[in-house]
Amino acid sequence: MRRVAVIGTGHSKFMFNSPKTSVEMLSEVAMDAINEANVKPKDIQAVYVGNVLGDFEEGQGMVQSFFANDIGCFNVPATRFEGACASGSMAVRDAFMWVASGFYDIVLVGGVERATSMSVPLATRTFAMFGDSRYEYPAGFTFPAVFALLAHLYASRYSIPLQRLKEQMAAVTVQSHEYAVKNPNAQFKKAISKEDVLKSFVVSSPIQLQDACPFTDGAAAVVLASEEVAKKLAKKPVYFAGVGQSSSGKLSSQYKYLPRIRAREIASRQAFDMAGLTPKDMDLCELHDCFSIAAMIAAEGLGFFDYGTSGEAWEKGETRLGGKIPINISGGLKAKGHPIGATGVSQVYEVTRQLRGEMVEQGRQVEGARYGIIDTLGGDGVLLSLILSAV
Amino acid sequence: MRRVAVIGTGHSKFMFNSPKTSVEMLSEVAMDAINEANVKPKDIQAVYVGNVLGDFEEGQGMVQSFFANDIGCFNVPATRFEGACASGSMAVRDAFMWVASGFYDIVLVGGVERATSMSVPLATRTFAMFGDSRYEYPAGFTFPAVFALLAHLYASRYSIPLQRLKEQMAAVTVQSHEYAVKNPNAQFKKAISKEDVLKSFVVSSPIQLQDACPFTDGAAAVVLASEEVAKKLAKKPVYFAGVGQSSSGKLSSQYKYLPRIRAREIASRQAFDMAGLTPKDMDLCELHDCFSIAAMIAAEGLGFFDYGTSGEAWEKGETRLGGKIPINISGGLKAKGHPIGATGVSQVYEVTRQLRGEMVEQGRQVEGARYGIIDTLGGDGVLLSLILSAV
Repeated sequence: MRRVAVIGTGHSKFMFNSPKTSVEMLSEVAMDAINEANVKPKDIQAVYVGNVLGDFEEGQGMVQSFFANDIGCFNVPATRFEGACASGSMAVRDAFMWVASGFYDIVLVGGVERATSMSVPLATRTFAMFGDSRYEYPAGFTFPAVFALLAHLYASRYSIPLQRLKEQMAAVTVQSHEYAVKNPNAQFKKAISKEDVLKSFVVSSPIQLQDACPFTDGAAAVVLASEEVAKKLAKKPVYFAGVGQSSSGKLSSQYKYLPRIRAREIASRQAFDMAGLTPKDMDLCELHDCFSIAAMIAAEGLGFFDYGTSGEAWEKGETRLGGKIPINISGGLKAKGHPIGATGVSQVYEVTRQLRGEMVEQGRQVEGARYGIIDTLGGDGVLLSLILSAV
Repeated sequence: MRRVAVIGTGHSKFMFNSPKTSVEMLSEVAMDAINEANVKPKDIQAVYVGNVLGDFEEGQGMVQSFFANDIGCFNVPATRFEGACASGSMAVRDAFMWVASGFYDIVLVGGVERATSMSVPLATRTFAMFGDSRYEYPAGFTFPAVFALLAHLYASRYSIPLQRLKEQMAAVTVQSHEYAVKNPNAQFKKAISKEDVLKSFVVSSPIQLQDACPFTDGAAAVVLASEEVAKKLAKKPVYFAGVGQSSSGKLSSQYKYLPRIRAREIASRQAFDMAGLTPKDMDLCELHDCFSIAAMIAAEGLGFFDYGTSGEAWEKGETRLGGKIPINISGGLKAKGHPIGATGVSQVYEVTRQLRGEMVEQGRQVEGARYGIIDTLGGDGVLLSLILSAV
């Protein structure tokens, strides 16, 4: 297995109601990534794309082959991946393997979603298709309800009074918005207070509006290359140190592991073992905060905090710049935005740029960052872990 | 790169209106493949699934993780691929790489679709999302219209009178139905005559109903393993000799190559080069006859017949058992059926069973078959070529 590097990155502004189609959004970020990588579209040997609702939302399936052709990547293999919110990371991990195996030297990975043409209630119902549609969705399990359930189980298991948990969850949101203000690509470039969170309307108790990430339109892309190519083309190649993927199936089949989400512990273990690293080695983390409780659970599952203590960690600033483990310094899904199929690729973009030391101007650089981990959760329990390294 | 073998196969009956969900269909064929491979669900290290309309048709996205969990493949990486009708073959090619690279030893590939709950007119419009949705679908390009266009271009380029072309297309359909009668999994186990084809109603001139494959519910699965594992477990492992994938983008961008479909020529060239084989070495072929004109174009693109002559080849019986190159001895998409995301995996099932010599009882064995090629076309120009070998 060869080492694989990120040598180019592209990222759209995340927003409501983009005037562009998915093919157009993807084309733009892909060209940015290709240009940054100092290659041409004809050098791209294969294309990997995360996209979830293209057919449902926009009436366009198979976006990957249309956009690839439009930007001049003619006749390449172009593959679409769907693992709900983890689709983008899934595409990245797969592309990694095609380069690591020696089959390709230079490939493009993109992620794109248009998710805001529908009203939020309809989008919420639509997106519940990525939970179990036979037994759970009919019982009311849209994703806000799933994470409300997890919040109750979490509070109960760790004996945290619900009002206290709400305050902890608010601390997660407040931090995410604070950093999103510094991120020019973020959907919500606006700080909010703990009080703003706690007075927002209840979506599915105890989850309130400001505990939940938005629906978002957006795209991101990265160019991956073999180490040999990367050393020729990139000033600061960022390498994959480890990758992991796991899945769980329906909630009712994993009740013993709720709310820890076992698939995350397995996927991240794979990535850490492959990298020969531990959570202590990580300098930053972009994790899947589709809800603030999801962020807390993720930080524990990844090994950064003891179970039941991550809310306190956020409150104490351990997840901030300069803290024990800076988490979601991009603003996270909550405030940067969550264009479903693009999210994993956006996380890779963020960690790559941090590991290159390019966030100084934005005032959100993790000083001297060498290792970063990406965590993406898709639907009922698809988990991706990707560890990137500057060394 | 290691050699990779098919060591287990499973296939549902193809039909209208299956009473089963996609997760259930997939679970059943996967267990058949696992049992035939002499492994257990816990031995499966990763799962790859082709599926297109799960969310649209059934309200179930991400079928791969739910079915994997249901059959006891707990916490494995489970990935869904979408490349329209080529989704299943795309999943197979990707799974092939994960084993060939040495990352996994035993993986499961499945394909599944429910496509018949919608009326055929609605399904036709729905499926047009896998063409270009911006310029072509609004101009009336559902897939019957796309292939009607190709038929006219084909007739014109090769100076074949349209009535003569219709007779050639009918010959393709008649042969497919004849072999489907012998295939217990086929959707249409009924022979039809040339006259039946020519008197069927016109869908999009010159394409008539009997020139078009049906929508179908169904599933198929195969277990892939490294050569080392295959030699221990399988009596007759069938090996991958070559794989290829290419794509084109929207029709208007490839007008020079219509109706040859350039992506097919590229994908099959990749597969032949990788295998060190030529079209002459092939003993059988399962190709993408979504329409009878599609079959004719495919047979030429794969190198079996000169351009403009494959209709005559079908009429002369060169595509039959004992002919120059037996094509779609399964009944093909036209008569075996076309459950979109399952089709590529079903083709691998067919060729594997032929290369093992297991079609004798059904009266449709290609005698002494050593090499077989699979051709799958997805939407506007995703092409997969897979070459399997008994030696």
